[in-house]
This record gives sequence, C-alpha cells and structure tokens, in this order.
Amino acid sequence: MYPQTDIKSYMPVKILFGNNCVFNNKDVFKQTGKFPFIVTGKSGAVKSGAFDDVISVLNGGPYILYDRVEENPKVSDMEDAAIISKKFRCDYIIAIGGGSALDAAKAIAVLAVNNMSGMDLFSKKADAALPVIAIPTTSGTGSEVTPYSILTVDEWQTKKSFAGDCIYPKIALLDPKYTFSLPIDYTISTAFDAVSHLFESYFSLKSNEMSKMYSQEGIRAFAKAVDAIKNRKFDEQSRSALMYASMLGGIAISHTGTTAMHAMGYSMTYFHGLPHGFANLYFAEPYFRHMMKQEEQKTKTVTDLMGMTDLQSMINFFSDNIPRPKLNKEQCERYATLAMMQSSIKATPGNLTKEDIVNMFKEAGRT
Amino acid sequence: MYPQTDIKSYMPVKILFGNNCVFNNKDVFKQTGKFPFIVTGKSGAVKSGAFDDVISVLNGGPYILYDRVEENPKVSDMEDAAIISKKFRCDYIIAIGGGSALDAAKAIAVLAVNNMSGMDLFSKKADAALPVIAIPTTSGTGSEVTPYSILTVDEWQTKKSFAGDCIYPKIALLDPKYTFSLPIDYTISTAFDAVSHLFESYFSLKSNEMSKMYSQEGIRAFAKAVDAIKNRKFDEQSRSALMYASMLGGIAISHTGTTAMHAMGYSMTYFHGLPHGFANLYFAEPYFRHMMKQEEQKTKTVTDLMGMTDLQSMINFFSDNIPRPKLNKEQCERYATLAMMQSSIKATPGNLTKEDIVNMFKEAGRT
Repeated sequence: MYPQTDIKSYMPVKILFGNNCVFNNKDVFKQTGKFPFIVTGKSGAVKSGAFDDVISVLNGGPYILYDRVEENPKVSDMEDAAIISKKFRCDYIIAIGGGSALDAAKAIAVLAVNNMSGMDLFSKKADAALPVIAIPTTSGTGSEVTPYSILTVDEWQTKKSFAGDCIYPKIALLDPKYTFSLPIDYTISTAFDAVSHLFESYFSLKSNEMSKMYSQEGIRAFAKAVDAIKNRKFDEQSRSALMYASMLGGIAISHTGTTAMHAMGYSMTYFHGLPHGFANLYFAEPYFRHMMKQEEQKTKTVTDLMGMTDLQSMINFFSDNIPRPKLNKEQCERYATLAMMQSSIKATPGNLTKEDIVNMFKEAGRT
Repeated sequence: MYPQTDIKSYMPVKILFGNNCVFNNKDVFKQTGKFPFIVTGKSGAVKSGAFDDVISVLNGGPYILYDRVEENPKVSDMEDAAIISKKFRCDYIIAIGGGSALDAAKAIAVLAVNNMSGMDLFSKKADAALPVIAIPTTSGTGSEVTPYSILTVDEWQTKKSFAGDCIYPKIALLDPKYTFSLPIDYTISTAFDAVSHLFESYFSLKSNEMSKMYSQEGIRAFAKAVDAIKNRKFDEQSRSALMYASMLGGIAISHTGTTAMHAMGYSMTYFHGLPHGFANLYFAEPYFRHMMKQEEQKTKTVTDLMGMTDLQSMINFFSDNIPRPKLNKEQCERYATLAMMQSSIKATPGNLTKEDIVNMFKEAGRT
C-alpha cells in the first residue's frame, strides 16, 4: 500500500521563519494576549538580540521578565516562576532562548493555569496551559515546535520529560540571525542534536510517510551546513539552514520520538560530560552500521541526502567532529543497562538486545 | 539563502490517515464533544460506508443528522442547518462527504456559534466555530485540511469562498476505503483537482520551502496513480495514493492558494460544464509551457516527480484524459477577462497580462 503506513500527524504550531520575523509579525503578540510573562536564560536572549527585538515590538506594553532559567531547568524553579506569573495574571508566555528556556516556559505555562505541583507535571495529564510564543536562539532541540519539555528533578538529581498537546507553542518565531553570535563548538554540538532528531525519527519504527518527509527535508537542509561544520566557519546561509533543519527535527520527533542513539547518548552526557548532540552522534558508527543491516534503503537515502559519497564518509564526518572518550568493558555494560531502560530502544528497528547495545558502546568506545 | 524564502506554515488539523481510521481513533469523537451535528450529502456518506462507521463508533450516543447538502451548497441552506444545530445545542460537527459536505460543514460551524447571517460569512471575520471532524469520501478538494469553504450565493448565482483559521477542521479522518466505490470518471476528475492544487501551489509566487515540500510529496503520491488513471482501473493502492495526494494538495494550497490554472478553469466549469479538476488541467499545455519559460527547474522537478520522461508526455497524459471543448476567439477574450479578475492570477510567475491569458485560452481551446 501507499502510503506504506497509517499516518498520524499533528503540528499545531504556527511557524514563522525568516529574517526579522519578530518585526514582520508583531501582530502575533497582541493576538496572543495582553500581558506577557517573558521567560529567558541568563544571557542568551539578550546576546542574541532577540530580547531587544521583542521589547521593541511590545512597544511600551507591560511585561514581567523571568530571566533566571538555568541550563538544566529545575522543577522547583518552575514552580516559583509560575507563582510570579499567576500573581501578575500574565495571560501568555514569550519564551526566548535555547532548549532550556523553551522547555522551562512550557512547564511554567502549565503550572500557571493548573492547581498542580511541579512533580505533578510528570504524573498528571494537563489539558490547559498559557499560550507560548517560542523564539529559539539556538539550532538544536527544536523545542519551539514540540510537545515535550525536559526538566531536572532536584531530589532525584535526574532529568525527566513530560509531554502534552497543550504545551505545543502556539507560535514559533524563527530568525536565523539570533544564532549568528553562537560559539563554533556550541553551534556544532547543537547542530548534531538537531540532526540526531532527523536521523532517529527517520529510522524509527514509529515513522510514517509524513514524518519521513519532514526528516528528509531536514537532512537536506542540514547537508547545506556540512562544509561549514568541516571548516568550522559559519555564514548566514549555513546558520539559516541549521535553524531550518533544527525546526524540522523538532517536527519529526513530535511524530515519532527518538531511538537508540538518544537512549545510549544519555550516559555519555551524564558520565563523560559530552554535550547532548555529541553524545548522540558518538554512536554514529555502530548506529549506522546497524541501520545498514536493518534498513538498507533508508540508510542509503540518508547518505545521499547528506551529500556523502558513501556511509563511511558520513560516519567519518561525525567522528571527526566529536570528542571520543574511550570506554572500558565495565562502563559499556553499565551504560547499556541504563540505555535498555529507555523506551526509545523499542522504537529502533532490529529488536535490539542488551548485548547489541553493549556491542554498540564497545564499538563506539574503542577508539 | 537557505531556505530561499521566508516561511509561514500553519496546519493545525490533526491528521489520522489509514485503513479503519474511524474505528482506530474512536476516542476523538468523545474528546471533541458530546452531541454531534452530522453534515452529509444525500448519498455519498452512506454509499462510502463512512456514515455507518461513524454511527457505529458513536455507539448509541445522540446525534442530529443533516443530510441535505447539495453539490454546490447554498448559503441559505447553511443558515437553516445552523438554526437546527443551535436549537439542539450540538457542540461539534461531523462532516462526511466530498468537498461540498465539508465546505458546508465549515459554514454551519461558524453560523452555529456567531450571530451572523449567511452573507456575513463573506464580509465579517469570524473568530469562533464549532469544532469539525472531517471525513472525506472523495480525493479531490483536500477540504479536510484547509481553512477554505466555497459556497453558492443564491441571489448572485455565483460561488464565493470564505477563509479563516477557525474553520480548519480539528481532526481529519482519512480512510481510503471510503473512495473504493467511486465511479471512474469522478475518480479521475477529482484526482485532477487534487493534482492541480499540488502543481499550482508548487509554482505559486507564494510558495515557500515547506509548502513546496508538501507539493512534492503529493505529486510523488499522485504519480503512483498515473497508470491506474491511464488504464481507468483503480485498486486499493492507487486510491490510497490519491487520497494521500489530495490531502497534501489541501495542505499545499492552505499555504499558498492557487494560480492561473484555477482562475482560467472557472469559465470552463460555468460555461462548458467541465468538472473542476478537468477544467483546471484543460490548460495543462499552455500552463506548463509558460512555466517551462518562467520556472524551468521547477517544471523539470514536477515532470520527474510525475514519473514522466519529458514535459510533452506529462501534457499528453492530462490531455488524453480530459474532454476538450473548442473555444472561439470571442470566448477566449471573454473568459480571459473573467480570469483576470481572480487574485490567483497575481500569484502566478511571469506577470501574466490579459493577452497572455487570452493566448492560453486559445492554445488550450484550439483542439
């Protein structure tokens, strides 16, 4: 049959992408609400120029600023922020920043209109949230178009995510210029996060004709930044392509979630400090080799879309740009156990066993 | 730059596509409301099997049936239907049928919750409407995913459309089997409507990277039914591909609207009785020749996606399947004047003049 699978597709975010998109779409603020609660990190929103643009289009109107979102936003801080938003009766949220600021804003949006504790986010299903206008200043998580939020749970010292249709941002305003001043290493590691979303969604057992369409469009866009990454020199074109790719990665995983690469990557972040994007693509070699066996046509399509002559070139491209800590046998075993606890393992083609995952850690960690 | 243009993309419809999708997603009815107003035409909803499926999943729950939508739904009838819906306090609409039933449902959805006359639909902007679950039984208009509704205005004896974010259906349930019993000629003419949306959106000056992605995916799907159309023999695969293509055509024109093909096609429907899809592709030869001059790369891409060896083969494919009334000089002049009044002319590449349009009518009408 064609399409080959059932399709479930839902992307209610109004996407506005382009140079000066905040100025060119200033009406969306008024249309969304009267009194915004602005959520940002400590510096990115200002450095990027996005904060000044937003204040300018608010044109003297009132707002409350919460600019204390940390790199891994804590649930307890979100509770505090929601109390402030409630107190001032803010009626919408403007989130400016990277994935942390956007994810924090989603949590605040829910807590501000529900009688819930922060921990309830992970156990209760919320139906309502303040509308969020999301303005990303990095190209990585795609959070501006996802129904996901990842937070740090203080007492467990771990990250947890929650999801829900009500936390899809209402509007995403994407202006590539907000990423122009990002450091090179950070640009690359976040870009690798974006492309891991595109790859994993494409290979996911939950993929469908439409999600694959988004993945392919996103990989095609990412490919336009491959030379920039190799040369560690980004221009407007490559940064714009990466922002577009990152958004498409967000749309793709909103359809499918992730797969084994993410499941394995977490340990490389927690125990070896690799940035999330690097942690995922640390497994490029074993992951793509596995996919070549399970999904040959898809793997070839990805290689083509990436503009690579062959699979090894693609693997080398990632390996050349990622720090490669060695892993010993005990680490491989332990991390594989943790990875197997992630549900994304089951969305990976090939019925991965613990042994398969141990071998992937060994293959990636032998260098 | 890449993406080459600013992007505006909004597609808030939850798309559920697949065999038995009504049964597989029965929860969406309960989630949408308690008391549905069901809008259908006189026979298509029943013949397709969709009506029985819906009644079955409503599982004995109450509903009001309005099964009197005509081929070209009249504004005055929509007013009457809305009064019934209001009277019974229905809280959502289930629309089952072709473009007419779905477009009628959108009008009723607005009139049922606003203090508006039917004619106000064309002059006032409504912000609210009853939520609509759209279940198409033809593959043509793509109305299940558009913010458009086309109605017949009784006193003017003409069609008029209205648009608005509030009339995007909330959910589209697409099951290809509802189209299995459609007559062959009707299947082809509606399929040509769908593919004209895909072509015109792709070429439109309003197209952007994302709308083009939808168009390309849709043309690729349509191509899988080309042999079925040639052989006038449809199987499940080709009908499924056409339903998918039609939906993507709806998504594509939701981004861009149409172009000159639609503007010219109207006269072929009004004055020569050609079904809408045939009326548009009646202009395949002059339209694609024009595009080959204006947008060579895009025209080649379309030819490739259609699986055609060259442009002439693609033109022949359409011409071979369309009734071809001859047009005299006076008709060409008159119809061109009417076409020039359509705003979609301006969305066509190449700054089309009245003379250009006259020539397109002449070229199409000389056979």
